[in-house]
Amino acid sequence: MSKKKVVLAFSGGLDTSYCVKYLGEEKGYEIHTITVNTGGFDEKEIKEIEARAKNLGVASHKTVDETKNYYEKVIRYLIYGNILKNNTYPLSVSAERMSQALAVAIYAKEIKADAVAHGSTGAGNDQVRFDMILNILVPGIEIITPIRELKLSREEEIAFLKSKGVQMNFEKAIYSINKGIWGTSVGGKETLKSLGMLPEEAWPTQVTKAGSEQVKLTFEKGELKKINDKSFAHPVEAIQHLQSIAGPYGIGRDIHVGDTIIGIKGRVGFEAAAPILVLKAHHALEKHVLTKWQLSWKDQLAQFYGNWLHEGQYLDPIMRDIEAFLTNAQQNVTGDVTIQLHPYRYQVLGIESSYDLMSSKFGKYGEMNLGWTGDDVKGFTKIFGNQTAIYHQVKEENEAKS
Amino acid sequence: MSKKKVVLAFSGGLDTSYCVKYLGEEKGYEIHTITVNTGGFDEKEIKEIEARAKNLGVASHKTVDETKNYYEKVIRYLIYGNILKNNTYPLSVSAERMSQALAVAIYAKEIKADAVAHGSTGAGNDQVRFDMILNILVPGIEIITPIRELKLSREEEIAFLKSKGVQMNFEKAIYSINKGIWGTSVGGKETLKSLGMLPEEAWPTQVTKAGSEQVKLTFEKGELKKINDKSFAHPVEAIQHLQSIAGPYGIGRDIHVGDTIIGIKGRVGFEAAAPILVLKAHHALEKHVLTKWQLSWKDQLAQFYGNWLHEGQYLDPIMRDIEAFLTNAQQNVTGDVTIQLHPYRYQVLGIESSYDLMSSKFGKYGEMNLGWTGDDVKGFTKIFGNQTAIYHQVKEENEAKS
Amino acid sequence: MSKKKVVLAFSGGLDTSYCVKYLGEEKGYEIHTITVNTGGFDEKEIKEIEARAKNLGVASHKTVDETKNYYEKVIRYLIYGNILKNNTYPLSVSAERMSQALAVAIYAKEIKADAVAHGSTGAGNDQVRFDMILNILVPGIEIITPIRELKLSREEEIAFLKSKGVQMNFEKAIYSINKGIWGTSVGGKETLKSLGMLPEEAWPTQVTKAGSEQVKLTFEKGELKKINDKSFAHPVEAIQHLQSIAGPYGIGRDIHVGDTIIGIKGRVGFEAAAPILVLKAHHALEKHVLTKWQLSWKDQLAQFYGNWLHEGQYLDPIMRDIEAFLTNAQQNVTGDVTIQLHPYRYQVLGIESSYDLMSSKFGKYGEMNLGWTGDDVKGFTKIFGNQTAIYHQVKEENEAKS
Amino acid sequence: MSKKKVVLAFSGGLDTSYCVKYLGEEKGYEIHTITVNTGGFDEKEIKEIEARAKNLGVASHKTVDETKNYYEKVIRYLIYGNILKNNTYPLSVSAERMSQALAVAIYAKEIKADAVAHGSTGAGNDQVRFDMILNILVPGIEIITPIRELKLSREEEIAFLKSKGVQMNFEKAIYSINKGIWGTSVGGKETLKSLGMLPEEAWPTQVTKAGSEQVKLTFEKGELKKINDKSFAHPVEAIQHLQSIAGPYGIGRDIHVGDTIIGIKGRVGFEAAAPILVLKAHHALEKHVLTKWQLSWKDQLAQFYGNWLHEGQYLDPIMRDIEAFLTNAQQNVTGDVTIQLHPYRYQVLGIESSYDLMSSKFGKYGEMNLGWTGDDVKGFTKIFGNQTAIYHQVKEENEAKS
Repeated sequence: MSKKKVVLAFSGGLDTSYCVKYLGEEKGYEIHTITVNTGGFDEKEIKEIEARAKNLGVASHKTVDETKNYYEKVIRYLIYGNILKNNTYPLSVSAERMSQALAVAIYAKEIKADAVAHGSTGAGNDQVRFDMILNILVPGIEIITPIRELKLSREEEIAFLKSKGVQMNFEKAIYSINKGIWGTSVGGKETLKSLGMLPEEAWPTQVTKAGSEQVKLTFEKGELKKINDKSFAHPVEAIQHLQSIAGPYGIGRDIHVGDTIIGIKGRVGFEAAAPILVLKAHHALEKHVLTKWQLSWKDQLAQFYGNWLHEGQYLDPIMRDIEAFLTNAQQNVTGDVTIQLHPYRYQVLGIESSYDLMSSKFGKYGEMNLGWTGDDVKGFTKIFGNQTAIYHQVKEENEAKS
Repeated sequence: MSKKKVVLAFSGGLDTSYCVKYLGEEKGYEIHTITVNTGGFDEKEIKEIEARAKNLGVASHKTVDETKNYYEKVIRYLIYGNILKNNTYPLSVSAERMSQALAVAIYAKEIKADAVAHGSTGAGNDQVRFDMILNILVPGIEIITPIRELKLSREEEIAFLKSKGVQMNFEKAIYSINKGIWGTSVGGKETLKSLGMLPEEAWPTQVTKAGSEQVKLTFEKGELKKINDKSFAHPVEAIQHLQSIAGPYGIGRDIHVGDTIIGIKGRVGFEAAAPILVLKAHHALEKHVLTKWQLSWKDQLAQFYGNWLHEGQYLDPIMRDIEAFLTNAQQNVTGDVTIQLHPYRYQVLGIESSYDLMSSKFGKYGEMNLGWTGDDVKGFTKIFGNQTAIYHQVKEENEAKS
Repeated sequence: MSKKKVVLAFSGGLDTSYCVKYLGEEKGYEIHTITVNTGGFDEKEIKEIEARAKNLGVASHKTVDETKNYYEKVIRYLIYGNILKNNTYPLSVSAERMSQALAVAIYAKEIKADAVAHGSTGAGNDQVRFDMILNILVPGIEIITPIRELKLSREEEIAFLKSKGVQMNFEKAIYSINKGIWGTSVGGKETLKSLGMLPEEAWPTQVTKAGSEQVKLTFEKGELKKINDKSFAHPVEAIQHLQSIAGPYGIGRDIHVGDTIIGIKGRVGFEAAAPILVLKAHHALEKHVLTKWQLSWKDQLAQFYGNWLHEGQYLDPIMRDIEAFLTNAQQNVTGDVTIQLHPYRYQVLGIESSYDLMSSKFGKYGEMNLGWTGDDVKGFTKIFGNQTAIYHQVKEENEAKS
Repeated sequence: MSKKKVVLAFSGGLDTSYCVKYLGEEKGYEIHTITVNTGGFDEKEIKEIEARAKNLGVASHKTVDETKNYYEKVIRYLIYGNILKNNTYPLSVSAERMSQALAVAIYAKEIKADAVAHGSTGAGNDQVRFDMILNILVPGIEIITPIRELKLSREEEIAFLKSKGVQMNFEKAIYSINKGIWGTSVGGKETLKSLGMLPEEAWPTQVTKAGSEQVKLTFEKGELKKINDKSFAHPVEAIQHLQSIAGPYGIGRDIHVGDTIIGIKGRVGFEAAAPILVLKAHHALEKHVLTKWQLSWKDQLAQFYGNWLHEGQYLDPIMRDIEAFLTNAQQNVTGDVTIQLHPYRYQVLGIESSYDLMSSKFGKYGEMNLGWTGDDVKGFTKIFGNQTAIYHQVKEENEAKS
């Protein structure tokens, strides 16, 4: 009987290296590793991961570059919706993991795998995201999660790998890092408690720029197209360029506290210079070009979209409906946004857009009314408050009676 | 026939000084000025305003200190709801103006005035707020707004006042400032356009602190009770103390772009060190002690509350219903929040609370599951994604058919 | 100097007849009447209205049949959204008046009119709808509303018309009726008070069918395409056919109580057999083919859409964004719905659809689970209730301490 | 070693009878049955259930009458919120099951039980509701669900019981019925498919009244206090009295299609004369006494409340926050509602309330404006549509340019 084929989502770290050996040598699977790059790995790292997979003796290894697809399928809507979970976190890992799970599921179908394995523990969100996508897209496929199932300690994994003759850097990183185009998460002992900030040295991008500089972002229908008047072939490249400008200022660092899918609260540090600037610039532009109720409904729908994505529900068709709404709302989100960058902070300076609804042509706020009269406003206020006035009159009459 | 009594909301500035002379000498009203302090005036300023009113020849002048009442009626709910309009602005002026209009309306009723006058122009929000409250609380009272009605230029007002022998500082401030306990607004030529930041010198509070310091805020049921372990008799005093600590760092400066009640977009600078820190600290605490759906619904209701308050609708009974919700949700919002202050920025470092739902007792996020098993999560995910899985199965079947 | 051209929205009734004579003979306008048919007038009535306009001496009269356009622009979204205002009223008049105002505005632009007149009173919604659309689409055009401005009584209008030699039926209808394809409103003395139902004879469509019959409605992507397997060239024809079947049962009669745009409460009777059946059938189908969150968000967005349409805000771009959402959500809303009709009532019997998510293939509700196990549900419940369990544990610990 | 104590939620039916014998004789538990009456059992039925428990040999049996507590804890909020799931179903079983699970959990704690058992299958909502409440209120207690775990067929259960010498009526009812004060559910072969209505004979309450009668319901602060001017000691008694009047008309029958907690769609018949009439009367009253935004927000919050209750999440503190909102909103919900009853249908005729905001004092809808002028409305409309007008002007300018 031929061996059962398992697709293993592989990062090259301790957990997934353990999975290769455990599934291959203890469980008799034929291992097909896949590494899905969502903008976090450069070419050198990709090569190293490939080499590690080969060394561990996998049947095949595949690298998929999902970065642009990830933008097209997810990030663009996070931008359209100005989505920051709990008003803080750009969903860096949440969004990326969905994109990776989708690529893994498609690959498993493609090579007709019998099983899919991933290195998730039993206490995080990722296990749900991977299982969810697999249950939906490859219903019935066996899902194997050795770390979750065996509840292994780090020491046990190392001992096992050493016993199999594996040589790799077994030293534990003090901070666990997850890098992608939409931000880098940082976990460590400070984030395991409710009080405490990551120390300066924990941040993958160190602050190396001083002083201050301006950057101009140009959006077309909600998408970042130019930076300082330089055009980019794809928004992904614009985002990466912006990261190279703003990252060294230490912009976009914060700690997010949020509800995991499994009901516990979790805390995680992140740095996300480009995502934060893109979101805030986009939002500033929208405040000028959208109507009050567009802004209000976008907010509500986008918050749900972000939460539901975070919870692994990307494939619920409600997500497509919300994307249709968000896309439609971007028609006039075209213009320039200027931002001042400083170490650790930034300031949006304003926008320029031919769709700007704020224009002295229509009246200067607080100064002069054009196009309407004081009497118009008096009439407006009378009618606008009519129901509440009636309510209070009725209330007084009732109080007078009793 | 005796003169008609008019209550005039009086700030001592050019516009309301004009109103005194115009209404008193041109229109024959008996003028009763009232100045409502919402934390923006110190004793010296109050005395000066009183003196100016007397000099202008009013029949009476009254000063009302509404600061605590303003907190009790409005600010506490802005804190409970973490309310920042358009995710930026603590509603400094919006909220304060409501509080002032309420005090003016009550005073007009009390002294049986025939009319109420205010110095609003025809292009701002304040005209609606004053008219609204008056229409509702003193229905039928005459409302007089000379500046709005006569569309006077500054020069015309000055010429008129000079012709009446009034001596005051007629020099125009380059930036118009409105100060209250919940923040100070700053308008100037930069805010009349869509692009441009207020210059350093425009900010009423200059940055005089360097370096960095920590501050610990203690909340009880959502209210700020202590700062660095020092208790305060009233939250208003705690807020003022926090302002004295954080203001000199230049924290809480920004520009807000928003929809006015009258439909145009407006832009205004503001500085609000204490309000911003209180709101962000309170929100950080809530992220730890409230459940996911409490956070979600609070957000939705609070955004509406802020917008409706901004639009002058404080007296709509829906506001009382939302306040009941927000108050109920504060039962466990008790604990300490530590913040690091730096020039122009701050960082929430975390919280400590006996109501914290994040505790390693219940599982460490991303590390170890306690109280549930990997199989529980597998079962959870199967059921949690069941409907979407069915949806995709049905979809595939339909696609296969066609 | 040539006369100023006014476009007058003309129904042939007392008010708009008055407007012709008043504007033409007292005010010297050149009158161009327009009648916009939204499915409420048959050919004979259209001819009569034309004749009346001619007799009154207008410069020109135009009839526009907007019925299909009205469906394409508005009704389809009311159906997609299952929209019943206050859970009762299909927005019969609200929607129709918008459609008419749009047609009038376009006509005024086309013939370069100097003014537009309509016969609205000062106490209803229609004045706002007409003024709103005109202010937006033909900014600056003069709007004339003689009935509102002169606050004329019926008797005064009649006396004036008689003095001008006009001969028409001046007898007042006991009930005022407004008929269109999306329902007929009925107002009378019973609806002016909070208690009281319209009498049997007040309803334009009398109950002439007894017994009971079944009708099968076939939807394709949310649109009504067939009735009892008979296809129609346009949904408008299907709706009219359904009305001819169901109207004589007296289905869809009710009284709506709602908030007018001007702040007072209003009460109005209506009959709307086809609209109610289409909406309820469509909703029944959606309950089977959409996911839980699609249903939930559609509801929220649709309620806003209906209210905002009711308030005359059809041209706010948020409406287009919501339409994009609703349209996207209709992709699978395809299938048959069977309804039993009885005098004064109906019962939806169920649906058949290849997109039905309820299928015994996936488990029989309450009977047998397929595709998941009891342990899956146990795990699900543990995780699904995890946060609330933690909340209660923390609460107990705090209570034990105090 | 003493036997382990299990509390068994006992209805006297086949499934829970099986549980007694299985747990007692096969598993060695000491069985303590509990029957929680939520208004569905009369005294005779309670006695029969007690007798059956005794005959099956339980260690103890307890009956708890939760009806009033159920009203106080749940039903009152369903009324305040006018809650009909999917606009149809009064949540009869959903709400009742929560109330029963709470009583069972409290009893298990009280007698220090080692385990709790319930007769739920693996394909319904009730398993989640029971498990959820038990996980939260008695964390760690063993939960036993023999029917779910053993996936037993009816025949196997009967064979087992017969083998144990149990004598009872083993004949299967054609329709499964669940009765409580807030409605009776009916399941049968018609509800297992998407098309088909329950036959006349399936309904527990047969239609025995012809003709028509009026009933007047008096609410005080949202609670039903009187029927036809007769006072009741408790709203529960008023509801039961209304049921006795309206039930024989066959009012409140329908079929609900909804999303189960476990992701499948389910269909169930129900009859709920009193609940439907109370909800519709209450809603009619609210339309007259609440402001527009109170109605709107109540709707949104109440829909969530109903869904979250349905999903077993009654103990999430968000539910208490929403209850605070709903309670506050009931202050003026006082007045009479008159309803006409007919066989199979009813018509709300209107309301009378001293809090009615619809009063000719404030203007007659569509007829005469009092308290405001036509010019006020013109001004209102100009400002109300100002932003959309600006939007369209900007749009035209951009189109002209391109």
